[in-house]
Amino acid sequence: MKWCRFQNQNEPSFGIIENDKIIPVVGSPFTNYERSNASIPLENTKLLVPVIPQTFYAAGINYMGHVLKMAAITGREGSPPPAADIGYRANNALIAHNETILIPNDATEKVQYEGELVIVIGKTAKNLTPSNLWEYILGYTIGNDVSERTWQASDRTLWRAKNTDTFKPMGPWIETDVNPDDMTTTVKVNDTIQDQFKTNNMIFGITDYLCNMTKYLTLYPGDVVWMGTDDVPIDIKDGDVVDIEITGIGTLSNPVRRSKE
Amino acid sequence: MKWCRFQNQNEPSFGIIENDKIIPVVGSPFTNYERSNASIPLENTKLLVPVIPQTFYAAGINYMGHVLKMAAITGREGSPPPAADIGYRANNALIAHNETILIPNDATEKVQYEGELVIVIGKTAKNLTPSNLWEYILGYTIGNDVSERTWQASDRTLWRAKNTDTFKPMGPWIETDVNPDDMTTTVKVNDTIQDQFKTNNMIFGITDYLCNMTKYLTLYPGDVVWMGTDDVPIDIKDGDVVDIEITGIGTLSNPVRRSKE
Repeated sequence: MKWCRFQNQNEPSFGIIENDKIIPVVGSPFTNYERSNASIPLENTKLLVPVIPQTFYAAGINYMGHVLKMAAITGREGSPPPAADIGYRANNALIAHNETILIPNDATEKVQYEGELVIVIGKTAKNLTPSNLWEYILGYTIGNDVSERTWQASDRTLWRAKNTDTFKPMGPWIETDVNPDDMTTTVKVNDTIQDQFKTNNMIFGITDYLCNMTKYLTLYPGDVVWMGTDDVPIDIKDGDVVDIEITGIGTLSNPVRRSKE
Repeated sequence: MKWCRFQNQNEPSFGIIENDKIIPVVGSPFTNYERSNASIPLENTKLLVPVIPQTFYAAGINYMGHVLKMAAITGREGSPPPAADIGYRANNALIAHNETILIPNDATEKVQYEGELVIVIGKTAKNLTPSNLWEYILGYTIGNDVSERTWQASDRTLWRAKNTDTFKPMGPWIETDVNPDDMTTTVKVNDTIQDQFKTNNMIFGITDYLCNMTKYLTLYPGDVVWMGTDDVPIDIKDGDVVDIEITGIGTLSNPVRRSKE
């Protein structure tokens, strides 16, 4: 089942995607919902960010390929994180499928995509176990953790390196019937494949993160957990289009512009 | 003017506090509102967290007294942050005035309060200037940035050190008619004054932070910015009560318990 959020005349609405149509619902996938009798063509409908989380979690470094290749490039020793310590991103930066990543005019050329699997929490969750945690996941979507590498190295926090407005594309929708073990992540820039990796080849998997996190914190319906990226991204620039495809979910596509102001 | 949020029968409602009464409103201070004809005694009414932010910002280290005294205690060199790089906290950890700070049973004894001024954003804001930014602030409330110091030192992120459930008391309400230059922050543990400092004696002030942040990000109505703490807090333990008073706003009070599970 594919859940989307879209602009239904004057207000955002959740909808179910069936073939090339959106069936608007009253309610949401996180509470109760009723299918309406309407049906809207998916094509030409403006999709919104599929959910605005109450808390926006991100694993950060979570693939050995990324650790080792980044180490080779920077000349620093690369070591994996010692524990599944979750990090954060910020809602101001979220944009939807097809919306524009806008690079600030004072950013360097070192602006890069990061293709990530995103877990969408469906139910309030505390003290999850490896056996019950899957019931608390509504489904999966795709994230692009756009990063300005000079600010990432220079600033005390990741605020502008990763949370500048438009730096967090997420979508296009939430897929509920899919198995992370069967996924491959493919990143294309201008239709050329740049990176391709087994999505679930993580240092700390979904089980590690959700069980560890919920010892101390409550996850709420609509919270998202971005699971990190593998490989080493290339720089993106004005005029590029970044497509992130994950098997069974779909493709998140965003054009890139550099601000002239 | 004092804005609060409270449980109005089955649902949360915003209200205006006048003397010892709450006047419920239809709407919110962030959109339009209409005063109702009702009036509810403030005493015995359960106040809620005064606003759930879309993004929860926190300055972190922002007072020289805190930098120097912490350096003296740890034996490390203390230096102020070089720039107004904003950080983040997480909504799961928010609790209201009078709600209980629950220390996990595996936390060490090094759990400490931090009394902080909180800016509440009133209007969508980008590219703020020193002269116009005050129009975008709805008002001020009080935060207690509860921190487990061993996790703060050991973990890759601040996730459980600062964002364990209940570790972010905020309230009791939002005061709109107050000047940060006139404020003193006073922290009491069990009615004994532990810390007292001039609230606006910050390394980077409200102007520095809001102007810097909004070069790259949009602030939205209801976003909060916690401005850091001065002095060096003491450990808090099961049975304690922490009161944080800021002149002109009020007092945020929270009891402390240690979980037995």
